[in-house]
Amino acid sequence: MTELIDPADGITYDELALATRNRGMPLEGMRYDITPAGMHYLLVHWDIPAMDASAWRLQVGGNVRAAVELTLDELRARPARTIPVTMECAGNGRARLDPRPVSQPWLLEAIGTAEWTGTPLNGILNDAGVEPGTVDIVFTGADRGIQGDVEQDYQRALPLEEAMRDEVLLVYEMNGRALEPQHGFPVRLIVPGWYGMTSVKWLTRIDAVTEEFAGYQHTHSYRLSQNEEELGEPVTRIRVRALMIPPGIPDFMTRKRFVERGTVPIEGRAWCGTSGIARVEVGVDDDWFDATLAKPMGAWAWRGWSCDWDATPGEHLLRCRATDEEGNQQPLEQPWNLHGMANNLAQEVHVTVR
Amino acid sequence: MTELIDPADGITYDELALATRNRGMPLEGMRYDITPAGMHYLLVHWDIPAMDASAWRLQVGGNVRAAVELTLDELRARPARTIPVTMECAGNGRARLDPRPVSQPWLLEAIGTAEWTGTPLNGILNDAGVEPGTVDIVFTGADRGIQGDVEQDYQRALPLEEAMRDEVLLVYEMNGRALEPQHGFPVRLIVPGWYGMTSVKWLTRIDAVTEEFAGYQHTHSYRLSQNEEELGEPVTRIRVRALMIPPGIPDFMTRKRFVERGTVPIEGRAWCGTSGIARVEVGVDDDWFDATLAKPMGAWAWRGWSCDWDATPGEHLLRCRATDEEGNQQPLEQPWNLHGMANNLAQEVHVTVR
Repeated sequence: MTELIDPADGITYDELALATRNRGMPLEGMRYDITPAGMHYLLVHWDIPAMDASAWRLQVGGNVRAAVELTLDELRARPARTIPVTMECAGNGRARLDPRPVSQPWLLEAIGTAEWTGTPLNGILNDAGVEPGTVDIVFTGADRGIQGDVEQDYQRALPLEEAMRDEVLLVYEMNGRALEPQHGFPVRLIVPGWYGMTSVKWLTRIDAVTEEFAGYQHTHSYRLSQNEEELGEPVTRIRVRALMIPPGIPDFMTRKRFVERGTVPIEGRAWCGTSGIARVEVGVDDDWFDATLAKPMGAWAWRGWSCDWDATPGEHLLRCRATDEEGNQQPLEQPWNLHGMANNLAQEVHVTVR
Repeated sequence: MTELIDPADGITYDELALATRNRGMPLEGMRYDITPAGMHYLLVHWDIPAMDASAWRLQVGGNVRAAVELTLDELRARPARTIPVTMECAGNGRARLDPRPVSQPWLLEAIGTAEWTGTPLNGILNDAGVEPGTVDIVFTGADRGIQGDVEQDYQRALPLEEAMRDEVLLVYEMNGRALEPQHGFPVRLIVPGWYGMTSVKWLTRIDAVTEEFAGYQHTHSYRLSQNEEELGEPVTRIRVRALMIPPGIPDFMTRKRFVERGTVPIEGRAWCGTSGIARVEVGVDDDWFDATLAKPMGAWAWRGWSCDWDATPGEHLLRCRATDEEGNQQPLEQPWNLHGMANNLAQEVHVTVR
């Protein structure tokens, strides 16, 4: 059962314990094209596991012609590719929902863009020889724990055709350096365009299976359902979203912003897992105007945007919303669901102009 | 006015906004002698400032014979020293207090140990020639914001004799690499033994002053007071503390631990800013026994400890507490104060043995 809480009742200590371990990227981090590794958002379902690179092996098996076992050196010797990828947690924005589903209480910061280096998964699957009848590729991590009374290794799957995309990588470097433990050392999966739960960290096994994978993280979590009776659509690709770097200076305790009157540059990033960014609009109180889009950084990375705001004294509400190339636009009313997934409600920034 | 909240009323959204930006070190990170940079705790008072290393200058002035200006290259050309230092936020443990002072709501995780590389501050102060009559050395960071209605650059001071200690460094590398932006790039102060508020990030100015520094972060914050009328003693050195890596596996939502019966290794770290660690005790329910101390890593870094626990089925409360070489021991009752500073109450870990 997912617990729902009236926001007026505050955040629980269980949620705080998750918020203290997991971490968002402070939004001013959007000033960097590539997020420094230590600023990238991080969600760890259970504990960061202790990994020994020399003992680590990747097992590739299941419905394949010949099971494969790879050492880290063997994986690193394979063809390498580096891609900038924007990752977002599927639960980003959960703590802004009313009523609020109790889980990791993200506000807006569960984002980051890194340059990931690894070897394409499809090369390894081709070496193993995926047999006909394969439906899903299942990925198992070394992290283990309990969720909803079920003890489990962390497991997520991809439909075979998604797993075979050229840009799906088994990654051993982030921003040109070996992964740090919390980002999946020694090897993790990166699935560009999908929410972060798919990019399994501390990868130990890859299995081809002939039925749709029905593990806990597919059937009890990461679903867009309205109530406990409804299974709901699975969470897959990242919904269109823009975020701005809050302008001016903050108050320590409230994080409210203070800005000097006059021309104020506003900038941020926008991204989408299914297509490109077509438009970013900035709202000042109830007026919306178009921001200028920067050159794309790549098919799977966020896109910069900027505009100037003529700030007049008083209290103002700044918002931003993006539209993707397929015409999907961020909502101004909450897209509520039971697990608090994929909430791409437009950001709101309260500013006092002096 | 510091707001106090009954823990039963939950955490406020303002506190959550701080918890989402700032971050603790997941306690399993204590398995590493040196904390990976991206796992180290982080508290940023306002925003991470945009810094340009080529334009950066360090100004050293005030009550000195000859003001000094240094570029980053000049700073890096000076004698270098690398020291492992355990840092802890003075507010660590604040969210465990009853009533709870509203500020960054740390539970236990505001800790980390890094190898910091930089040049001793006393060499630079000697070059500038600190004049007689100097009381404090004031450090100014590039981070700016509002706290308690006062707009301010972040500033902290050290008494001259503390500033002249050989191990007080102006640091440009963390764990052998240039500082990441969030840790104070390009240069920060590191004051071994003191709580983290002293180790000013994004350093821009150092000034010798002839009166005790009375800036906001000394007079309105970082004080051990019991009420608004009392100024209280300043927060300075880190109080003795031990923490354990919670054993077994966690439940996702509650973070409660599940352990298999039998011999369970328990390990953790202990540290103190004023002397060495003399003893670590582990409590199982109401029985306490001594842990074995590992070899010290250095005068300013945490010390490992371990023991075996014969875990019997049922619910158990694990605790740990350290005693320093001066006989100070962690309390089992909360050491409450108005700003929630230096709360070194013994850690409690609830475990179900199966």
